[in-house]
Amino acid sequence: MKAEGLSLSCPTPLGRHMTVQMAHGGGGRLMRELIERLFLPTFGSPAAAERHDSAAVTLGDQRIAFTTDSYVVRPLFFPGGDIGKLAVYGTVNDLAMSGAKPAYLSAGFILEEGLPFETLTKIVRSMADAASDCGVELVTGDTKVVDKGKGDEVFINTAGIGLIPPGVHIRPSRVRPGDVIILSGDVGRHGVAILSVREGLEFDTAIESDCASLSSLVQTILATGADVHCLRDLTRGGLASALNEIAADAGVDLEIDEAAIPVQPSVAGACEILGLDPLYVANEGRLVAFVPREYADRVLAAMRGNAVACDAAVIGRVTATGSGRVVARGPFGPARLLDLLSGEQLPRIC
Amino acid sequence: MKAEGLSLSCPTPLGRHMTVQMAHGGGGRLMRELIERLFLPTFGSPAAAERHDSAAVTLGDQRIAFTTDSYVVRPLFFPGGDIGKLAVYGTVNDLAMSGAKPAYLSAGFILEEGLPFETLTKIVRSMADAASDCGVELVTGDTKVVDKGKGDEVFINTAGIGLIPPGVHIRPSRVRPGDVIILSGDVGRHGVAILSVREGLEFDTAIESDCASLSSLVQTILATGADVHCLRDLTRGGLASALNEIAADAGVDLEIDEAAIPVQPSVAGACEILGLDPLYVANEGRLVAFVPREYADRVLAAMRGNAVACDAAVIGRVTATGSGRVVARGPFGPARLLDLLSGEQLPRIC
Repeated sequence: MKAEGLSLSCPTPLGRHMTVQMAHGGGGRLMRELIERLFLPTFGSPAAAERHDSAAVTLGDQRIAFTTDSYVVRPLFFPGGDIGKLAVYGTVNDLAMSGAKPAYLSAGFILEEGLPFETLTKIVRSMADAASDCGVELVTGDTKVVDKGKGDEVFINTAGIGLIPPGVHIRPSRVRPGDVIILSGDVGRHGVAILSVREGLEFDTAIESDCASLSSLVQTILATGADVHCLRDLTRGGLASALNEIAADAGVDLEIDEAAIPVQPSVAGACEILGLDPLYVANEGRLVAFVPREYADRVLAAMRGNAVACDAAVIGRVTATGSGRVVARGPFGPARLLDLLSGEQLPRIC
Repeated sequence: MKAEGLSLSCPTPLGRHMTVQMAHGGGGRLMRELIERLFLPTFGSPAAAERHDSAAVTLGDQRIAFTTDSYVVRPLFFPGGDIGKLAVYGTVNDLAMSGAKPAYLSAGFILEEGLPFETLTKIVRSMADAASDCGVELVTGDTKVVDKGKGDEVFINTAGIGLIPPGVHIRPSRVRPGDVIILSGDVGRHGVAILSVREGLEFDTAIESDCASLSSLVQTILATGADVHCLRDLTRGGLASALNEIAADAGVDLEIDEAAIPVQPSVAGACEILGLDPLYVANEGRLVAFVPREYADRVLAAMRGNAVACDAAVIGRVTATGSGRVVARGPFGPARLLDLLSGEQLPRIC
């Protein structure tokens, strides 16, 4: 093992690190560097270079969304969900962010020797329920077992495919100055729910993960006929990181009205105690939509009619082409720059 | 943790085990039980119930092969390959077994904190080379990092999709009495290559993994116009396990001519020293094809013209409908029953 900081001798200089840090999986700046400096240039895929939640690819005469995520969340069960539910909804949501109708999922299990079958059975049943809930089929899978001490009970990978309807083109590069940013509901619940279990915290009101399928919400949005420019679910790194990614990839600057962002009082209180910024806390059932101004009212009304987005709100706008700055304006105080953090505030959140 | 053997109180009785054993990932009887008693009934997917290497699904007006595998091989680098090459070829091969032309792959990395970037870079470059070699594109990915001591350097999941040409229907349930079984080359090299590194063994002749793409070979076979009934690559559990699976899923009995199965002398020698049966040792670049007798000569000739199958040979036939018995006839001795082992002789082989 070499010392940290010797990036000159590193075969692929990844910032100042010679080895993988927890933050490289955190959805922040270090993960972005890993993707930009290693994965994208080495794999050289134009579809991957779009940097969206799922790749839009052409197979035969059809456009298909294709995506994958591994799930390593701790604990395996938490208020409002579990690793199995997350593994289905997370991948379904990534497909939905391309406007695709999610159709089929794969499931790859990496099990640690000694895992009780009772635990595995609960997880697998939860996956089946979640899949049934959002109308996708788990069609192919794989199981590997690693020695005790070489895993952490269970890791799950899901990949998913779905058809992208003709005329639907949803990706960061279509975001334009003038676009309105709509948030589908309150933020911060998933991360706080996980942390409360990890730390053994109890709050007056139980805080549950927002873990949910966004597929029907996206179908609702598309049914308005609006020309949706981009959708992004607010997982690792939360709302602030998602906005930063899109701003950077689209080459635009964003302005957010901080008072318009719904945060449950219990979540806000917990974040204050824990020293977390709710705008950076992971969600598992929230999205932002970038739509041209003329469609904003129509899309907002449609979203509010869907059970997972009844608190949807316009939270900001694309101000200009630019270098990817995201500015949040408070009700009284001065504007603050929402920057990309180096990693996630809470590791292994999904 | 409860005691083993109390299957009466187990919520999903998985044989006599209450917890996951290494053998549940071994490609043998225990893995088959896990799939049949937990995954298939819970997920309830007709496509998965076909029990093939990849699922054949309909998306829009097209038939698509979709598959996934996680790779947890130790060591990460071995003679003839590495985990990255395996992760590409393994999934490409599973797509090819449906007759699909592999098109796109996803890559999900689970990295252990502290992994040197030098190691990761070598693996990612190897994946890119392998993908380029077999004409697939790595289009979407994900990176998770787990705490030091909760993983084992790097686990990789790949999923893949490809188009199944019209008229191609390759699956175990099409296997019929009278079908001829053709093996694409010598067996046992991958497992022995891995074991030789693990155990620090040296042989007179270096034994390299057969790790290779089978995609062009399958295209070659299909180009003959033969009505191929089934294809199966010979990974975990080797040739004997693959034959057992197909025999059971097709409801047929098979007879194999043991003398017709090519095994390199160095591999045969190593297996004898190590107490392994080469017919059960994993391969990563070998397949068996089940074809009606009238196509056998044509398919065999075409296979021998492909670089990865120049030693292809007819090794047996489907004798009758039955309960899935696989009988191997030796040149002199009596016939022996090739049964499914409980697990893989060598854990974490892929």
